[in-house]
Amino acid sequence: MTNQMKPSRSFASDNNAGVHPRIMAALLAANRDHVIAYGDDPCTARAIRLFRRHLGRDADVYFVFGGTGANVLGLKAATASHQAVVCARTAHINVDECGAPENFAGCKLIGIPSGNGKITVDQIKHVLPAAGDEHQVQPRVISVSQATEMGTVYTPAELKALARYAHAHGMLLHVDGARIANAAASLNVQLRAITRNAGVDVLSFGGAKNGMMYGEAVVFFDQTIARDFKYTRKQGMQLPSKMRFISAQFEALLSNDLWRRNAAHANRMAQRLARELARLPRITITQPVEANGVFALVPKECVPLLQKQSFFYVWNEDTSEVRFMTSFDTTRKDIADFVCLVRTIVK
Amino acid sequence: MTNQMKPSRSFASDNNAGVHPRIMAALLAANRDHVIAYGDDPCTARAIRLFRRHLGRDADVYFVFGGTGANVLGLKAATASHQAVVCARTAHINVDECGAPENFAGCKLIGIPSGNGKITVDQIKHVLPAAGDEHQVQPRVISVSQATEMGTVYTPAELKALARYAHAHGMLLHVDGARIANAAASLNVQLRAITRNAGVDVLSFGGAKNGMMYGEAVVFFDQTIARDFKYTRKQGMQLPSKMRFISAQFEALLSNDLWRRNAAHANRMAQRLARELARLPRITITQPVEANGVFALVPKECVPLLQKQSFFYVWNEDTSEVRFMTSFDTTRKDIADFVCLVRTIVK
Amino acid sequence: MTNQMKPSRSFASDNNAGVHPRIMAALLAANRDHVIAYGDDPCTARAIRLFRRHLGRDADVYFVFGGTGANVLGLKAATASHQAVVCARTAHINVDECGAPENFAGCKLIGIPSGNGKITVDQIKHVLPAAGDEHQVQPRVISVSQATEMGTVYTPAELKALARYAHAHGMLLHVDGARIANAAASLNVQLRAITRNAGVDVLSFGGAKNGMMYGEAVVFFDQTIARDFKYTRKQGMQLPSKMRFISAQFEALLSNDLWRRNAAHANRMAQRLARELARLPRITITQPVEANGVFALVPKECVPLLQKQSFFYVWNEDTSEVRFMTSFDTTRKDIADFVCLVRTIVK
Amino acid sequence: MTNQMKPSRSFASDNNAGVHPRIMAALLAANRDHVIAYGDDPCTARAIRLFRRHLGRDADVYFVFGGTGANVLGLKAATASHQAVVCARTAHINVDECGAPENFAGCKLIGIPSGNGKITVDQIKHVLPAAGDEHQVQPRVISVSQATEMGTVYTPAELKALARYAHAHGMLLHVDGARIANAAASLNVQLRAITRNAGVDVLSFGGAKNGMMYGEAVVFFDQTIARDFKYTRKQGMQLPSKMRFISAQFEALLSNDLWRRNAAHANRMAQRLARELARLPRITITQPVEANGVFALVPKECVPLLQKQSFFYVWNEDTSEVRFMTSFDTTRKDIADFVCLVRTIVK
Repeated sequence: MTNQMKPSRSFASDNNAGVHPRIMAALLAANRDHVIAYGDDPCTARAIRLFRRHLGRDADVYFVFGGTGANVLGLKAATASHQAVVCARTAHINVDECGAPENFAGCKLIGIPSGNGKITVDQIKHVLPAAGDEHQVQPRVISVSQATEMGTVYTPAELKALARYAHAHGMLLHVDGARIANAAASLNVQLRAITRNAGVDVLSFGGAKNGMMYGEAVVFFDQTIARDFKYTRKQGMQLPSKMRFISAQFEALLSNDLWRRNAAHANRMAQRLARELARLPRITITQPVEANGVFALVPKECVPLLQKQSFFYVWNEDTSEVRFMTSFDTTRKDIADFVCLVRTIVK
Repeated sequence: MTNQMKPSRSFASDNNAGVHPRIMAALLAANRDHVIAYGDDPCTARAIRLFRRHLGRDADVYFVFGGTGANVLGLKAATASHQAVVCARTAHINVDECGAPENFAGCKLIGIPSGNGKITVDQIKHVLPAAGDEHQVQPRVISVSQATEMGTVYTPAELKALARYAHAHGMLLHVDGARIANAAASLNVQLRAITRNAGVDVLSFGGAKNGMMYGEAVVFFDQTIARDFKYTRKQGMQLPSKMRFISAQFEALLSNDLWRRNAAHANRMAQRLARELARLPRITITQPVEANGVFALVPKECVPLLQKQSFFYVWNEDTSEVRFMTSFDTTRKDIADFVCLVRTIVK
Repeated sequence: MTNQMKPSRSFASDNNAGVHPRIMAALLAANRDHVIAYGDDPCTARAIRLFRRHLGRDADVYFVFGGTGANVLGLKAATASHQAVVCARTAHINVDECGAPENFAGCKLIGIPSGNGKITVDQIKHVLPAAGDEHQVQPRVISVSQATEMGTVYTPAELKALARYAHAHGMLLHVDGARIANAAASLNVQLRAITRNAGVDVLSFGGAKNGMMYGEAVVFFDQTIARDFKYTRKQGMQLPSKMRFISAQFEALLSNDLWRRNAAHANRMAQRLARELARLPRITITQPVEANGVFALVPKECVPLLQKQSFFYVWNEDTSEVRFMTSFDTTRKDIADFVCLVRTIVK
Repeated sequence: MTNQMKPSRSFASDNNAGVHPRIMAALLAANRDHVIAYGDDPCTARAIRLFRRHLGRDADVYFVFGGTGANVLGLKAATASHQAVVCARTAHINVDECGAPENFAGCKLIGIPSGNGKITVDQIKHVLPAAGDEHQVQPRVISVSQATEMGTVYTPAELKALARYAHAHGMLLHVDGARIANAAASLNVQLRAITRNAGVDVLSFGGAKNGMMYGEAVVFFDQTIARDFKYTRKQGMQLPSKMRFISAQFEALLSNDLWRRNAAHANRMAQRLARELARLPRITITQPVEANGVFALVPKECVPLLQKQSFFYVWNEDTSEVRFMTSFDTTRKDIADFVCLVRTIVK
């Protein structure tokens, strides 16, 4: 059975889901008349106003095509090429962007081993290169993923501690918020509580993993590093010509709490999936389920049998740890069917 | 009057138009179920098959977010950083991509002065750096825009002459085909006639300027330079996660001749606009109208008055040459209204 | 006859000469004991003090290995990657550094046609990209070569005009001073008069073309752009470990007017060579001889015959214009012999 | 007491030594007449022939200014920007080149924890990114330092095992040979035994740490990756104009076993220093002394007292591990004086 013949529902990735109906409706509605390209249109103006309502009046907001672009361009704005970004070794920017940060920002990433995807000030202190030593890259950015790639979530207090340390040492705090909505929903706080109010300087605000078709935002809370960002966005090949269609999606997502409802649903489904799987023999949940990811040890010999019928990724070949992701459209039936499948195969 | 209050129809850019209804319908239809992200889905497989039907069975096709990305990544695949790209000085890659080719491919652009946006072998011969001289960048790519930024179109014979020269000198022929459909429609030939069969090696195939929402394709006819392109695309921040939504658009565009009908309509509207404007006193059409662009000299003092009521770009401040673009949705009424406006203001 | 069998004296390049005896003596003298590497040594401190005596107390001075490194790193310090450098099309940075500026600084070069190697504010005004337009690189640096690649020299007034224009438009003035000594000697002014006092912001100060073995200096008169330069130098692979041996050479060069005497001698020899050649039939001197270069039209059929016996470069194949360079060690006999050779071959 | 007032002899770095007298003599001898710049001179031809005598007739040899340049350019030749270099976390390229590899080659470095500076196939296997996964950088180079930054040396068998693994997986073996002479002397083998014959593909051959003033060589044993290196060297700002003065130094170094005698002397002095220090109470030698480096634990409170009188680097602040380096000119008296100093301070 090839991938393309598998049942269409799976827990492989929140990128495998489609587009939320209200976002699709917004796209349809935006498709009338001519508007000026590249963002000088009313829909983009409205979307940016909405962002500021959520994140603060002084937030500088730039829409881009995708998540890698959002991260890499945000980091480029924050760093010179002789500077370094400290992050978890498991960070998306470190392992899943094909070296784009190093390539485009020209800077160095310093990865910190982390069991649960989170990093702490204590860990950071021990890896920082020597400040002022011209032979070494100079620490400039602490980058965290929120929620993390391991399905965990930083609390506002944890973020504040990182921001305080960063700012005390001439550094900035960057958040890869591909799943920032899942984090806010998980913590049951406003978006502002884990971004602006926590001392974050640059934020990648994710859309595609939370029901959009495409489009992310780079949000700057530190205006000085945003100064030339419009050029960086263009040079970084991330300036959408028909911008209104990203803006319209964000307008829908940020209205009527759609962002939170989508994310909270995905989080609840992850909780449910983890609960059900945990009951099965020979399955061990390995990470706290705080967002929309579930990590589990599955007996090695069962993995290929399971993957024949449902697509998902093995996270760690050695330990046979696998990853399941839920999304805004995951249903209870999806979970019931999948748990049933696992029960049949893993005995 | 700010830009956002202007009448919504204008001749400023083919990027100001929206999405063709059949493409929007394809987006709606693609929005069901889960599919594997990043292109391993049936819709993408179908779209690539369609591309190959149009461009040849051996075409390697990669979808990306936007036109700058398509150009820059195609050039990166074709060049090493010590190599040079020769192009018209007016080429989009040379003037309107904020240095992205130099920045991402690391290579040098050598611009050739060109009145009508086209370049010839004779011109190229005179600007090529010294082959084999380690102090100079080494010529590697001839890049042309088809249709050009000046609204002109290369004939198949002209492209073949460029390709022949390129290949005889160890170089490649790159086509920025943001408006490749307009060119094929203008020449009344198949897409293949001005790409594969003309000896083109790398092609940016445009979608957004011909009725798509977003999405372009990089097409390689020379397989060797495509070998690692999937990594280049990811590192170049141009790998769409929910790929199916670009694929679905291309599937619609390449079916039932929609690509040609959209482009031919825009071309016809440009002809009509030029014809009508040419009749007015004090307006001079400056370029052959071969695609969907019209260039005209407009009395300097009239430009701001016109721009108050209709948005368009001044191409050359010194000569007061302006640019008008038509698109797939330009109507006869749009033209009539605009010509009427010009007639009133330019007396 | 291969290159290696040709008579050892020639007018091919001021890089073909060796090392001035007093500079060699300084290298010998510096070779005692251990000193801290990378510049924290007394000899480097002394050399920097000497530089400041010549160029001003506030000059920031960094030694690097070579001229390309000096230019490219100075430009990197002065630009962000979305910014542009305007220069003569004949500038060394534009044609003879294999794309290093674009590659390392990531920025774009905009070349201005120039008959005599010099550029003016009037020319610059017409090529500047649109300030504030995110699609275009933003003008940031005017770069001039002093003396130029065509053997001409900017007067202090000409430099001041460029600096004034640059500073009025948020730009900086960069000088490729590979032959700055020849320019100062030609104008009979202090080094300061054509650098700091003329409003120059960044200077590549050449050593190798004026009697040193290796080593150039990057000098900043604008401290803000120098702030992180020590890291840029290291990352740019231009931080010499045994720095004292560059410093010792500069100490010798900047003492007892050696820099001026070497350069003035080379200039005088160029004057003499040009005078003698101009007397010959069928030879036309094409550029004012203001520094140590002589450009001449030589009958096409004579060039290979001449090159069989003396190595030099053809500057322009089409017009058969050739370049002769003199150096600190050119003798009257060298000139007499060469003119005699030309007289024999060009009849 | 500032650095500049300290006694001139120290164990801080092999870069603090000067130039070997026979190399200085070679510089003097090379300083006659004109020769063609940039390497087309007889001295460079002779030096390359000597390199081939030592390393094999098919070695491609390119001289560059410095060690960072040699490493970074060699890696650039061996990698595309989406590829990765695996190395010890302590590798010079990873910690002491200010991010130059990432910046210039655009690629990613993957550091492996290593106690003694060496890495093994087993360790490498566990960090390699997923081959064929477009989201991840693709493993391309294993880079080792020989001798390592920890003063240890790879045996020919160890290198062969790395080369075998690399070649079996489409990878290359790169050696940072800033101290390759010390390694060959330590193993008492020919240079060829730990380079060409061990399966090395690219080598940085160090000069400055073994008695030269400046100059390193990039040596390719795999011709295919060397193909365009002359352009890479120029673009990488590492093409010396007066090349003969690097060539002359290498000619002297590679003649009459000077390279081995210098290195063997430094190695013996390191053995002696380690032996003497080991006898002192409260001093622990932490690494096998296989080349010219000695690592030792020194009581924390004694370090500043020692550094007041002799300059050296603390390697690990936490454990109070310090590094001592010997060089070609270290004397028995230097050692006796220093050991005496340590004995006085560390009681």
